[in-house]
Amino acid sequence: MNQSLVDYTLYLADNALILGHRNSEWCGHGPVLEQDIAITNISLDLIGQARYLYQYAAELKKDGSTEDSLAYLREDHEFKNCLLLEQPNGDWAHTILRQFVFSAYQQLLYQQLQRSKDEQLAAIASKSLKEVAYHLRWSSEWVIRLGDGTEESHKRMMNAVDDLWMYTGELFQAASYELGAASKGFGADLTSLKSAWEQKVKEVFEEATLPVPTNVSMKYGGKEGKHSGHLGVILAEMQHLQRTYPGAEW
Amino acid sequence: MNQSLVDYTLYLADNALILGHRNSEWCGHGPVLEQDIAITNISLDLIGQARYLYQYAAELKKDGSTEDSLAYLREDHEFKNCLLLEQPNGDWAHTILRQFVFSAYQQLLYQQLQRSKDEQLAAIASKSLKEVAYHLRWSSEWVIRLGDGTEESHKRMMNAVDDLWMYTGELFQAASYELGAASKGFGADLTSLKSAWEQKVKEVFEEATLPVPTNVSMKYGGKEGKHSGHLGVILAEMQHLQRTYPGAEW
Repeated sequence: MNQSLVDYTLYLADNALILGHRNSEWCGHGPVLEQDIAITNISLDLIGQARYLYQYAAELKKDGSTEDSLAYLREDHEFKNCLLLEQPNGDWAHTILRQFVFSAYQQLLYQQLQRSKDEQLAAIASKSLKEVAYHLRWSSEWVIRLGDGTEESHKRMMNAVDDLWMYTGELFQAASYELGAASKGFGADLTSLKSAWEQKVKEVFEEATLPVPTNVSMKYGGKEGKHSGHLGVILAEMQHLQRTYPGAEW
Repeated sequence: MNQSLVDYTLYLADNALILGHRNSEWCGHGPVLEQDIAITNISLDLIGQARYLYQYAAELKKDGSTEDSLAYLREDHEFKNCLLLEQPNGDWAHTILRQFVFSAYQQLLYQQLQRSKDEQLAAIASKSLKEVAYHLRWSSEWVIRLGDGTEESHKRMMNAVDDLWMYTGELFQAASYELGAASKGFGADLTSLKSAWEQKVKEVFEEATLPVPTNVSMKYGGKEGKHSGHLGVILAEMQHLQRTYPGAEW
């Protein structure tokens, strides 16, 4: 078994699952039916991506794991998602900014992974890119609409940037399994990814009249399983049924 | 303004919205990723149907109402959904049974409304039927799988039938606006609908080895705005943001 490949696949899956779960919290709680449906559709896309990735990881592990055991029966220190994605939804501006920042990253990452030496990862990346393009377009439009909107909406976007920027550095800080993945030709080059991401963010922020923060002290840890308490709360909620009735569909 | 038509349209919309909201509570909480996605997709279909219906009701009302104000700014006694749909999710068996019972009703209802004299209702019914057919197929399969499954799953389906059957009578008990709708040729004939529904339930229950209850004392009131406390809880949760920040998209 190739441990870097398993870990790398779980990393991609956990990112998608945790953000998908966070977005799903809006379902039925948003103030606008149309956007409630949009964010929930994004949620379902992400959970769908997570399923493909967990299925592949389970296949690689060959230890009886399934997509559901990987999603529902791991402990929080086993999750590899970036800290950004477990942050609480906050207001709509926070949710939108997180989606934009992540979708811009995910699009560039999956574009690279389309050329991965690992055929399964390449296929999943390729299949997901259409969805990701929509997520990025939708969230970019919202960042611009709110940033370049009313005084109130601009202020809220600024607050979201203040609160979330410290988590963006981790996207580009390679964990050991990402280094392993890159060296074996199935991962991504985070250096070129980072500069393309910065370019994309700069363009959208300019149109949104939002300054790109500088000199922010970044937070790391999620990729290596060191999570905030927020992940524990997500998992408690998400895993409750599976842990109460193992294997049962209730 | 045709008050029966407005009320009838709101009745159809409220049914779809409240069940959509209930199902959405599963999103990210189910024990199986695949089914989590399925029930959330059903949720989105129903909320999508509710949107079309609220848009139409708002157009008829001509009082500045919008789809969002109708969903988010009415009081619980103004909601016309059947009591069945506001019942708590319970376990998976309860959720499945409620979906099956309602989808069977909704399919027959929309098949009649396709021939409604009101062209908009006919168009919405027609557009929604493909979705409803999927909801009915999916929930029927689950009723059979659980009813004719293990001892435990059979017992849980029996409990669900015990808990929910008392709410099925209301589907066929015409409210004043349904009588108005039927007499003007844009509503449905609940008598023929009821016997077709009973036939469908009988077939699926037989395959699921579940007895169809008889002599159950039925509960009524939702269609006339007399709801259980459960609806208040749903609305408090659903309407919180809109009421806190009226018109704002946070």
